[in-house]
Amino acid sequence: MEVTRKNYKDCLNTVYSAIEEADFLAIDGEFSGISDGPNVSALTNGLDTPEERYTKLKKHSMDFLLFQFGLCTFKYDQAQSKYITKPFNFYIFPKPFNRTSPDIKFICQSSSIDFLASQGFDFNKVFCHGIPYLNQEEEAQLREQTEERRNQHANGVGTPSFISPSSSKGPAHVPEEHKDFINRVIEKVEALFTNAEKTLDLEPCTGFQRKLIYQTLNWKFPKGLHVETVETEKKERYIQVSKVDEEERKRREQQKLEREQEELNDAVGFSRVIHAISKSGKLVVGHNMLLDVMHTIHQFYCPLPEDLQDFKEVTMFHFIFVLQELITNTSLAELEKQLKESPFKSPQVEGFPSYDTAQEQLHEAGYDAYITGLCFISMANYLGSFLTPPKAYISARSKLIEPFFNKLFLMRIIDIPYLNITGPDLQPKRDHVLYVTFPKEWKTSDLYQLFSAFGNIQVSWIDDTSAFVSLSQTDQVQIAMNTSRYAESYRIQTYAEYIQGKQQEKEKLGQTTKTWGEDGWRIFCRYPQFLFILLYVWPNFCSRGLRKRSISPVQGEQGSGEPLITDGWSHYSYPDSTGSKKMKTDGW
Amino acid sequence: MEVTRKNYKDCLNTVYSAIEEADFLAIDGEFSGISDGPNVSALTNGLDTPEERYTKLKKHSMDFLLFQFGLCTFKYDQAQSKYITKPFNFYIFPKPFNRTSPDIKFICQSSSIDFLASQGFDFNKVFCHGIPYLNQEEEAQLREQTEERRNQHANGVGTPSFISPSSSKGPAHVPEEHKDFINRVIEKVEALFTNAEKTLDLEPCTGFQRKLIYQTLNWKFPKGLHVETVETEKKERYIQVSKVDEEERKRREQQKLEREQEELNDAVGFSRVIHAISKSGKLVVGHNMLLDVMHTIHQFYCPLPEDLQDFKEVTMFHFIFVLQELITNTSLAELEKQLKESPFKSPQVEGFPSYDTAQEQLHEAGYDAYITGLCFISMANYLGSFLTPPKAYISARSKLIEPFFNKLFLMRIIDIPYLNITGPDLQPKRDHVLYVTFPKEWKTSDLYQLFSAFGNIQVSWIDDTSAFVSLSQTDQVQIAMNTSRYAESYRIQTYAEYIQGKQQEKEKLGQTTKTWGEDGWRIFCRYPQFLFILLYVWPNFCSRGLRKRSISPVQGEQGSGEPLITDGWSHYSYPDSTGSKKMKTDGW
Repeated sequence: MEVTRKNYKDCLNTVYSAIEEADFLAIDGEFSGISDGPNVSALTNGLDTPEERYTKLKKHSMDFLLFQFGLCTFKYDQAQSKYITKPFNFYIFPKPFNRTSPDIKFICQSSSIDFLASQGFDFNKVFCHGIPYLNQEEEAQLREQTEERRNQHANGVGTPSFISPSSSKGPAHVPEEHKDFINRVIEKVEALFTNAEKTLDLEPCTGFQRKLIYQTLNWKFPKGLHVETVETEKKERYIQVSKVDEEERKRREQQKLEREQEELNDAVGFSRVIHAISKSGKLVVGHNMLLDVMHTIHQFYCPLPEDLQDFKEVTMFHFIFVLQELITNTSLAELEKQLKESPFKSPQVEGFPSYDTAQEQLHEAGYDAYITGLCFISMANYLGSFLTPPKAYISARSKLIEPFFNKLFLMRIIDIPYLNITGPDLQPKRDHVLYVTFPKEWKTSDLYQLFSAFGNIQVSWIDDTSAFVSLSQTDQVQIAMNTSRYAESYRIQTYAEYIQGKQQEKEKLGQTTKTWGEDGWRIFCRYPQFLFILLYVWPNFCSRGLRKRSISPVQGEQGSGEPLITDGWSHYSYPDSTGSKKMKTDGW
Repeated sequence: MEVTRKNYKDCLNTVYSAIEEADFLAIDGEFSGISDGPNVSALTNGLDTPEERYTKLKKHSMDFLLFQFGLCTFKYDQAQSKYITKPFNFYIFPKPFNRTSPDIKFICQSSSIDFLASQGFDFNKVFCHGIPYLNQEEEAQLREQTEERRNQHANGVGTPSFISPSSSKGPAHVPEEHKDFINRVIEKVEALFTNAEKTLDLEPCTGFQRKLIYQTLNWKFPKGLHVETVETEKKERYIQVSKVDEEERKRREQQKLEREQEELNDAVGFSRVIHAISKSGKLVVGHNMLLDVMHTIHQFYCPLPEDLQDFKEVTMFHFIFVLQELITNTSLAELEKQLKESPFKSPQVEGFPSYDTAQEQLHEAGYDAYITGLCFISMANYLGSFLTPPKAYISARSKLIEPFFNKLFLMRIIDIPYLNITGPDLQPKRDHVLYVTFPKEWKTSDLYQLFSAFGNIQVSWIDDTSAFVSLSQTDQVQIAMNTSRYAESYRIQTYAEYIQGKQQEKEKLGQTTKTWGEDGWRIFCRYPQFLFILLYVWPNFCSRGLRKRSISPVQGEQGSGEPLITDGWSHYSYPDSTGSKKMKTDGW
């Protein structure tokens, strides 16, 4: 279902009840761009730490607009053994609420816009009919302003765009060249008092002229008139003068205030859907969704916190483990294809204005959310096939899936597959990695040449004058360090030295890095309480020999017959914390 | 005529010849926003100096996109006594030329976008079908790259997206999980050699897989194949393998190079129209066109120079004087209305897909350019009515108009109506102006109270803690200065002191302000040579008593019977320069 400003209010209850009845939700966002700094491959260094990745995305991605939001609700119908799906495709645009409301500026990246254009994206639906939104602070401010205006009104103080002349402050000073114009207005209003018309529409004029009219009428006709500025669809403003008795005047003012209240709810707009998702506590599934989640919080709740730790605390995500030897491509299209083939099974679905998966509509957010949900079902059901006896249907609330909750895929990081929202992050041993600085003329080939004695190396560029070089053997590191000792054009540090240096730099600047559990759980009431799950695949892992996975057929806590899954990251070290309790070694 | 990427190439000659035959051109631009800093009224302080205004616009307006460019050509048909008009409405979008070309980021301002949406603006025409463009440096770079690639080609070095396997560097290292995939490709290619097909389209796959295919085919089949990556409309990339003999291979490579050359011309795109306007040397008319001109130079030529003096040197504009007592509104819609009434006359026009002025299409750039041109004609002809004998038709090349050449309207500056492109700017006496600094809690009412003894004052806010206060009498300045001497919460300086302070600050920073004539005319060949004219009206002047104008009925140089016009800014002082030679006093 396509939802724009035109049909938004009519759809809201349908959306609310779809969320309410759902077993799980899938979401997807389309943005006006990805990076306003380096290009995407430079933005996502393969050896980023989670903190570095978060900081880079926050710095370079948040000024773009999330302008299409896909939501697909999935409800399992036990009787028919099929899922009922309800996909929604929302168009979002920060239409200013009024002339004093925030005038949002956002960046567009030509390549992203061009890509969406090539997929048939309808920009008019965004820019002409997008649903507005407010973040929590803006909403609070606006409610306060409205309240203030209401109070002023109760005290008889009008605003320039809405004055019922009651107090007169003296005659307006009308500049010479406007005198004729104002005199003509006075004549018209005097005629209004004597004729049968109730209302007089003046011609559109400038803001200054409107001000003069207000002041003049205020002075000349202290009673019996209601004066209001009206805007045409084409944004032309004109003044409407009505004959009113005192009762009618009050009724009109009351009407106006009610209209304002409704307009305020309209201004909160799409944020109300996000609030409903958050409040529902339903499992939310996404594909490569770190950016979606960051944008959702940034746009509809509050500016993103400086610190990764604080970001984790404002979000809770879930993570689903997909067997990596079966999935070697992270694009959603490819994922969908593979999940249609054995050992996976396509789920049975039925939905209102359902998408036809044969007629691809990829990169429309609603369709992508729909496909994401289908993929999740296939993966969940596949996990069920390992049970004894096998189960064909695995619910979104199954214990089988829990190990994958609240983990967010970190695209293109070689050795940290996910961001762990509810605990400390994985800390892979990077003792085969060197940090190399060099003159800015150097190219990848220079690095290959420098390390030619060490066989296969992997280069991850940081910027013009530095890169990580991963050696294939850890014991080569010392040799490289020794060799480089007297080099003048370049400099080599171990990864540990590099991290230590960054840490010291931070401390010098008076910043301290928060570690997990330092100040416990700080869920602020102003933050959304999401329950997210991630559809996760990691192609890079295949070549690093991580092929095994283990599912121990242990009874679930509630005797559901479902196994627990261990994820066995035995070559990772965890910082001390309760987060490590799920870790087991299975001999990789 | 609407021009998008779809019909651009077909229209180009029509556009060129319309420019060539025209008597004058009118232009107008629509932007994705106006200010990414303060709101527009704060951006345009009524007491800005021309330097300040230029610097502010450059800083806060240039990251928006000029995405619709209106051009209307006007040619006078002597026989029919009417103008032939040709309006063009170009949609502009910086579609990236290829994956290595600049990926332009631009800002959108919600209020501007929303305003255009309310006027029926078609954003899909911009984003899906906009004509690309390059500035001069980008064009040069791209031509260089193409040249380089061509040379590499001549030397037998291929690029990854276009390899005719000729040199083999050894077998590709195919990771285990891709071996099956690559072996299937090899089988297909082997089959191609034995069957009747000439071409084989492989399935879309990842960039890494494409790389493996190139390397493998390069090694396995050093001769007889042409391998090329092809992109579908939906941006999916797949590899096309063709059987070719050596001759065919060369022919294909040649074809590819020619295609590249044509694509390069397409990438220069809309900039070619701007170059044609510039080269034509025709008079260009605009309405409030400072931003249009700045964007045009910034987007299609080169980043704007730091210094106003340098900006002036890259542009030459013309200025038309409109009798201010007749025109009291700067909006184009209002201007058009007034110029239809006496003493003006609507010109006779005729054009291809002509606009109907009754069916307003304001804020479409092509229509606005058309209306701008009509207004110019009305004004020019009105000047003719002062001749003896009166002339009904005044040509765009008439001496009557020359005094208004190369002057650019400065919107919302109280006492400097225009930016003088070909000479020093007006320096109004601001000896009734005070520069006041105060705590950031102060509001306009606090300033009114502070100066309550001085009668009418005018406040122009600079920022939270400073403003200009214009007194009605110059002799009040000394009293205000004396009174403030011992004040603690606020501080007052004369305008002269303020300017001096800014100057000293600049000098401390090592910046020097260029003055006119310091290094003479420096027209760089890389700069466009525009000949612009401004439709200029200044409503603010009415209340300042500047109502007279004088047209001295003196014979024109070439005996055309047309008068010279003096503009008589007698209360302005000019810095010493040749630019003042047109100034005369007429006793204001």
